[in-house]
This record gives sequence, structure tokens and C-alpha cells, in this order.
Amino acid sequence: MPEFNDILQAHEIIGRHVHRTPVLTSESLNAICGARLHFKCENFQKVGAFKFRGALHAVFTLTEEEAKRGVATHSSGNHAAALAQAAAMQKISAHIVMPETAPAVKQEAVRGYGARITFCRPTLEAREKAINQVLEQTGAVFIHPYDNEKVICGQGTAALEMLEQMPPPDVVVAPVGGGGLLSGTAIAAGHLCPAARVIGAEPQSADDARRSFHSNTLVPSVNPQTIADGLLTSLSPRTFGIIRQRVADILTATEEGIVEAMRLIWERMKIVVEPSAAVPLAVVIEHPGAFQDKTVGLILSGGNVDLERLPFQTR
Amino acid sequence: MPEFNDILQAHEIIGRHVHRTPVLTSESLNAICGARLHFKCENFQKVGAFKFRGALHAVFTLTEEEAKRGVATHSSGNHAAALAQAAAMQKISAHIVMPETAPAVKQEAVRGYGARITFCRPTLEAREKAINQVLEQTGAVFIHPYDNEKVICGQGTAALEMLEQMPPPDVVVAPVGGGGLLSGTAIAAGHLCPAARVIGAEPQSADDARRSFHSNTLVPSVNPQTIADGLLTSLSPRTFGIIRQRVADILTATEEGIVEAMRLIWERMKIVVEPSAAVPLAVVIEHPGAFQDKTVGLILSGGNVDLERLPFQTR
Repeated sequence: MPEFNDILQAHEIIGRHVHRTPVLTSESLNAICGARLHFKCENFQKVGAFKFRGALHAVFTLTEEEAKRGVATHSSGNHAAALAQAAAMQKISAHIVMPETAPAVKQEAVRGYGARITFCRPTLEAREKAINQVLEQTGAVFIHPYDNEKVICGQGTAALEMLEQMPPPDVVVAPVGGGGLLSGTAIAAGHLCPAARVIGAEPQSADDARRSFHSNTLVPSVNPQTIADGLLTSLSPRTFGIIRQRVADILTATEEGIVEAMRLIWERMKIVVEPSAAVPLAVVIEHPGAFQDKTVGLILSGGNVDLERLPFQTR
Repeated sequence: MPEFNDILQAHEIIGRHVHRTPVLTSESLNAICGARLHFKCENFQKVGAFKFRGALHAVFTLTEEEAKRGVATHSSGNHAAALAQAAAMQKISAHIVMPETAPAVKQEAVRGYGARITFCRPTLEAREKAINQVLEQTGAVFIHPYDNEKVICGQGTAALEMLEQMPPPDVVVAPVGGGGLLSGTAIAAGHLCPAARVIGAEPQSADDARRSFHSNTLVPSVNPQTIADGLLTSLSPRTFGIIRQRVADILTATEEGIVEAMRLIWERMKIVVEPSAAVPLAVVIEHPGAFQDKTVGLILSGGNVDLERLPFQTR
């Protein structure tokens, strides 16, 4: 299980190559939530998401022999773009398996970084089959989007920076899909602000992490339907182990709450975030008791959306 | 005619009450434009637009007797919200004449700050008639959105800050509607970087400033149709006088170019800007010869858009 020192070390390796994204605040969102919110803006990260941190760390720590073989992964989007970009920076090849339902903007990004894409149906089975074929054909090194220690430590550098950029928080909230970001966040916060509660934020309609957490058994996500397209994946034994030990709770948000939180971030903060990134604010709004009068650090995980397919309806 | 010292003085008066908005850069936009672009993000300003600077300066410099009478104006949106907010801060009354076509988000903002709204048809005549009635009935002090020295000096503080936040520019570009922002920008840049060319950026389909500039006669804007709803107004003799003397050129952008520039800013920079704010980038893209290999300062004037009425089409 990775420790705080592994995250520090990851930051030494990737720190000069990632954006130290700003932490923003909004008086009007503070007034709406009755809390002091600090948003770590990973939507401004390279490739538009925190995923660049983990992918870059994984690529930078390959052995020379591994680097020659290239890298491969499956991803609904941001990890794919991140790995493609990281591989391009190291001039090694990247093979990406993507569900055919991934947002066009994410598909274009992956192509733009020069990676080879294999499309599959948007099911766990189809993606497993496709990635196994790719690995067999290419001999590439598999970089799992979250079930990978280097990736988890890379993702943890976002919280590491955030906690240097804001006053000591009472609560830290990160979205949870496969659990890589939440795991890294919990390890960083557990060391830097041990009194803070670390909360995972999950869509109610893809609440496998909440159910796993409360039943103490890894419950897989079965055909989840949520606008938060970055949070469709299930925990892995590795991330579940970390989360079980280091996270205080998993709280969920409704689909309407996620869209409303996303709208608030766009309208009040004037920044573009993707639906998954709005889940922490939606959780704050839907569970006021847990955040009232608290200093809260929230990770805005990414900003990659199809602008011609936005969910905002006339009010 | 206001001088640089008047802008300095305006900044002393309002500096602590406005956001010192960041200047952002984007490697990918630099690559697209072949220039070094620096964006002054007034979309992050209070009320979501640079207009807050001018309105606040005008309100803060009222005499005690004037303040008691309250303030009034006509505006397609951002000046209205700005004056309403500035008046609320000084606890004086505000009366706003708005065209009934103003974006809902801007109408709501004005109402939210507690101002009284009078709607009129979206013509110069109708708004003049409505504002005259309001002034007669209320005795309020008229704060013109741009034909006002205090307003012009307030708007000039955006460029004042920008020029402290970026390397010395070869070119400075500001959007031009009524000319308040462009006038203040030209005065500030003329003093701080006299070698830089100051360019006004205007929609081709509302190009009264360009025609005025090139014919040396004030040409009014007649029923212009552009997505840049903040740039529908005509120059006044005051702003035309300043622009004629201090601006190097007025360049225009097509409607398609404005939407594409707006999309680029949203997608690449992950920030929300309104169409008017995208006109300077559209001008840079449509007139490459004037900006190639140059260091360019662009003012992103505001970020108030109706999220359910965005112009992005599937590509």
C-alpha cells in the first residue's frame, strides 16, 4: 500500500512537468453552501484532468526495457488522453482501448496526441477482451487507470498541492470512480491534515463505492447510467483496501444535483468543468449537515466536455 | 479628455474593491495563432465583467448630494449589473433601463442586486425615451455606460493591471462597443507601453467603430445583429475622440469567427467567456498578419452567458 513518502517522491518526479493548478474560491458558492469552499482546479491541468499526473508518473518510472515496449490502457476518456500525452512526451508508443460512447472531445484528444485507438462496447467484459487482445498483439506495458501504485501516487499529488494552497481543511472531498484519485487524496490528507475527514463523492446512480464501503465487500458497478462519465468504473481490490482504511465516508449525489452543481460552477466561477468534477459540490449541497461552517477542499477533477451536448435546460 | 493619471487615481479609489483578475496564457492557443497571447480575465471580475470597474468608480466619486438621489442607466446587461452592484455597495438606489432582449442571466443579476428595472424595445430611440422618463420621475444621476469620464477611467484600470502582469506587449486588443473599455485601454497602454499598437476588435456585422475610425466621422450603429450582445452600442463623441487619437486600428471578426474563438477559449482554456469577450481572439485569428510572432495582450471582457442558449454546433 503506497505511503505519503511515495506521493512526495511522485511529486518530485512529475512536479516540473504538470501545471501547479490554482485553488479558487467563490463568495457566492460559499454563501449558497454555508461553508468555506476551496476548489483545486485540475480542469486547468494538462489534457484537462488530474489523470495526467498519474499517467505521467507511471510513464516516467518505466524501466528502459518497458519504455521500448510502449504502453497500453483502457479508459472512458481522460486517462486515455493523459497516457497518450505522457507517452508522446517520452516518445514511446501508446495503445488505447476506449468505449465507443466516450465523448468526441476525448476521442479527438487521444488521436491528437498520436495514440492508436481500439474501440469497444461500453461494458467491462468488452473492454477486458479488447485490452487483452491489444496487449497480446503489441507486447505493451499495461497502465491500469487506477489499479496501479504509480498512478495512485501521481493522483495524490493534486491533494498534496491543494493542501499547501489552502488553510487547513475540516473536510476534503474527491470524486470516486475507480478510486485512484480518492486513494491518493486520502493518503496525502491523512499525513498532512490527519484531523480532516476525507469524503468520496459518487453519483447515486453509480454508487458501487458507497455500497462497497458500507458492506465491507467489493461490490462491482453493473451497467451504471450517470452523466458523470468519468465515474462509471468500479473500485479495485487495491483502491478498495486504501479507501476502507483511510476514507471517512462515501456520500452520493443525484443526477439533477450533479447538473445543478455543474451549472453553479460554470455560472458563478466562470470555469468549465465536466460532470464528474461537479459531483463533490453536488454532495456538499445535498448533504449540508456534513459541511456546514466547515473549511472544505474539493478537487475539480477535469474540464473535458462536448460543448454541443451540454445538459443545461431552461429554468 | 482623461489622462493616464486619472486612471491611476481611479485604481487607487477602486483597487481594493475589484478583483485583480489573473492574466492567463495557453500553449495550444499560442500554437494556433503563432503569437504569444496573454488574456486578462475580466470574466472573473465581480458581476462577471470589466464593467464593474467603471460603474464602481462612477458611484464612489459621486458627491453626497448626488448619492442621495441614486443612480440610473440604460444597458444591454453588464453595465446594468455593475451599476446595480456598485449602488448596492454604497447603499444607494439604482434604476436600470434594459432592452427586453437582454440575456436572462443578466436580467436576473440586476434584479438580484436589488435594482429597479424598466424594460424597453431594443432600439436606441426606445431606450433614450425610457431613460429620460426614469430620470424625470426619480431625479437619479445618469451614469452613462461609456460616455462618462469616470466610467472610462475605471475601465482603463483593467489594462493598467494587465500591463503589470505580462511582458511588454507589441499589441493590445480590446473589444469595442460604445468605446469605454477601448478608450481606457488606449490611455493606459499609451502611457505604459507607448510602442505597442492598440487595436479595437469589433464584430463585422456591427462595425460602426471601424467605419467611424476610417471615415473620421462618427457613424452610428443602425440595428446591428451580432451574437456579441455587449457590442451593439455606438461610439459617443467622447469615446470617438479618444479612439481617433490613441488607437492604431479597428479590426473586425465574422460571426462564425467569434463563435469559433469562443469555443476555443472554452475548450482550451476551460473558462467561460461571453461572445463579446471572444471578439479580440477572433480578430487575432482572422487577421494573422497583424499578430504573427507578436506578444499580445487581450482583454476578455466578461463571462455572462445563458448556458441553455449556447451557439456551439456539432462539428
